[in-house]
Amino acid sequence: MSLEHDLATRLFDRLRQAGDDGIGITRESFGAGESMALDIVEAEARALGLEVARDAGANLVVTLPGTDPALPLVACGSHLDSVPQGGNFDGAAGVIAGLMALARFKADGFAPRRGIVLYALRGEESAWFGRAYMGSSALFGRLSAEDLGTPHVVTGRPLLDCMREAGVDAGRVARGEKLLDPARIASWLELHIEQGPVLVARKNPVAVVTGIRGNIRHRAVECLGEAGHSGAVPRWLRRDAVFAAAELITRLDRHWRTLLERGRDLVVTCGIIGTDPAEHALARIPGLVRFSFEARSQNAEVLEAFYDLFLSECAGIGEERGVRFSFDRRLDTAPARMDEGLAARLRAGLRGMGLADEPIPSGAGHDAAVFAQAGIPSGMIFVRNEHGSHNPKEAMDMDDFLLGAELMARTLREIAA
Amino acid sequence: MSLEHDLATRLFDRLRQAGDDGIGITRESFGAGESMALDIVEAEARALGLEVARDAGANLVVTLPGTDPALPLVACGSHLDSVPQGGNFDGAAGVIAGLMALARFKADGFAPRRGIVLYALRGEESAWFGRAYMGSSALFGRLSAEDLGTPHVVTGRPLLDCMREAGVDAGRVARGEKLLDPARIASWLELHIEQGPVLVARKNPVAVVTGIRGNIRHRAVECLGEAGHSGAVPRWLRRDAVFAAAELITRLDRHWRTLLERGRDLVVTCGIIGTDPAEHALARIPGLVRFSFEARSQNAEVLEAFYDLFLSECAGIGEERGVRFSFDRRLDTAPARMDEGLAARLRAGLRGMGLADEPIPSGAGHDAAVFAQAGIPSGMIFVRNEHGSHNPKEAMDMDDFLLGAELMARTLREIAA
Repeated sequence: MSLEHDLATRLFDRLRQAGDDGIGITRESFGAGESMALDIVEAEARALGLEVARDAGANLVVTLPGTDPALPLVACGSHLDSVPQGGNFDGAAGVIAGLMALARFKADGFAPRRGIVLYALRGEESAWFGRAYMGSSALFGRLSAEDLGTPHVVTGRPLLDCMREAGVDAGRVARGEKLLDPARIASWLELHIEQGPVLVARKNPVAVVTGIRGNIRHRAVECLGEAGHSGAVPRWLRRDAVFAAAELITRLDRHWRTLLERGRDLVVTCGIIGTDPAEHALARIPGLVRFSFEARSQNAEVLEAFYDLFLSECAGIGEERGVRFSFDRRLDTAPARMDEGLAARLRAGLRGMGLADEPIPSGAGHDAAVFAQAGIPSGMIFVRNEHGSHNPKEAMDMDDFLLGAELMARTLREIAA
Repeated sequence: MSLEHDLATRLFDRLRQAGDDGIGITRESFGAGESMALDIVEAEARALGLEVARDAGANLVVTLPGTDPALPLVACGSHLDSVPQGGNFDGAAGVIAGLMALARFKADGFAPRRGIVLYALRGEESAWFGRAYMGSSALFGRLSAEDLGTPHVVTGRPLLDCMREAGVDAGRVARGEKLLDPARIASWLELHIEQGPVLVARKNPVAVVTGIRGNIRHRAVECLGEAGHSGAVPRWLRRDAVFAAAELITRLDRHWRTLLERGRDLVVTCGIIGTDPAEHALARIPGLVRFSFEARSQNAEVLEAFYDLFLSECAGIGEERGVRFSFDRRLDTAPARMDEGLAARLRAGLRGMGLADEPIPSGAGHDAAVFAQAGIPSGMIFVRNEHGSHNPKEAMDMDDFLLGAELMARTLREIAA
């Protein structure tokens, strides 16, 4: 493992130095920091004797050619951008793991039947334009005019302008052309740090991902009751918005627990709640409270069923408590299923390495979801990581990473052979 | 009733004209609007041939002398200040009802054994200095140096300066001297509009008040959990502050319902709740939520028992959900009991008038609480009123008011005779 270990250490160090913003790591989507990261990886790949190119999406593509060029390619990779003041591993770990595999194959003189390509993608993080997976979405012609007009959160410049400047073929992207033919890609494999705490809690270094959760969201649900003097209105005449919303949230929590006990995949969050500072008071019955709603699941049917429960509880509580719930636009993101065959192969590989095999869902979105939705059989490997991601404190142990990279290399070798 | 009706109509009209601010009624505590209201009532009382004076608290005192000057006086009244853009009835109704009684007694040549005094009090509303019952508290030497230094919410001038300007003997007030000897007052009777919706809902024009609720409050309770990615942290690893607070509030509501079913007097309110706008997000598990807590009851033991339940639920939920509740300073206001004998007399009077007798507690505070706490047997009459108070939409029907005033006059006549 010495070749891979040295390569990984060197690349993580170079990327950290290049992206250091004094607090964390900043590699702006379709910006200078991201481009510099692509250059660093490209130089390393070139030095290893691998083929390097930039595609029409200005992504870096590193190729180990196959002996049968007619066969679809085996693809792997991840993204090289980061959130502002983020960590060094989110995204980069997947690119480096791919390069380690190609370096090993090259060193071993392994000549696969199928070509193996590594994508160092741009523009995955939503922090810069409010839209995630821009780079992978562009590959499959999935950016709308509205997406492309989205202003940069700091400079206000439209996404398409920033893409053009980074080297993207803006005309093709704007026309919604596919920059990559899904039929040319046999499979997509992405290694990523886990952004949740499950592997730490379960003491497992690596896990295979079962699917990427989709979600149903409302940015703002309003519960409307009636304000009044807190001392002078007895319980039977109250229409208290906070008590009603609290009961709703408590009932959602109970349904959530029940669904988990029945084996469903689900997470539920009300990340935002608040009475109106313009009118609330300690001694005033709250007439209005706003809160956000989010349910996530790998299973679209579970999402719909939970959403039905949510609406039904709103109606019931509204009737019982004399309040009314109103809803802003429902936002949907479809779940992405990981390929079952690929997941089974990855899990077998994990067991073959003598490691515990406890697959987990991905709650966060990834470029793998875009590849899966384009019809490409996709798989993901999570590596244990502390303190979440999108912050400078993310902490991946190099030993864990080497295990994840090893699983990726083994699997790529199997499916490309 | 023609004398009383004409007097009431004339006085309410004059007070409305004098206090009109374009939107509602404004009679600033210890300010020009309040002083003008006192002058209007004084002129009317003088015209009726009643004795008028200002006491050391600059309150208006209208007296019908008793035949036995050694006996303690029978007192009645209310306050003449209002909140900004308030209504015309909150406070003034009680003063006008007292004057109507004295006018009737004078017209009838009724010579009571005990003198009857009407107080048109100043400074009841907390809207101007953040402190309520300033006028009545001053009478009994109950304003602290801190109270007297409280700045006017608009001008910033200290309360004591504004009191001095309105004619109060500021030196005596600052020394905490009693301006009125409680032993000189046999009883206090106050008519007031109901500030809640109970009489409207019960279709009763008038009710006798059983007591004035005290309260236990926290301005801010914090529930501290742990923030995290909403998709990536499963339920068993969550420390969700909003789910915990929602369950707490729901349990408080359940205890409240149970206590009501067992006949306890209680209202519970969380008027303010909110996650932190600086860090909350739709897709972020809320690590912190703040909310206010208020329980009110006529019974101090019920308050303490409910507060114990509150702390116990915080501890239990904290343990179950891995969150921690922390509390700012507990604020207490003691309940005030209305005199049982006086309440029984008022209720008998109500039934004698052929009216339904369904006594209710006062959830809002009143000067009567200050008189009761000074050891003076006190009673209150509520008159039906729509749309609450402290707003221009308060709506008392003149027929209802005349019934309340009639009950007050009958009762004053009985106890002064």
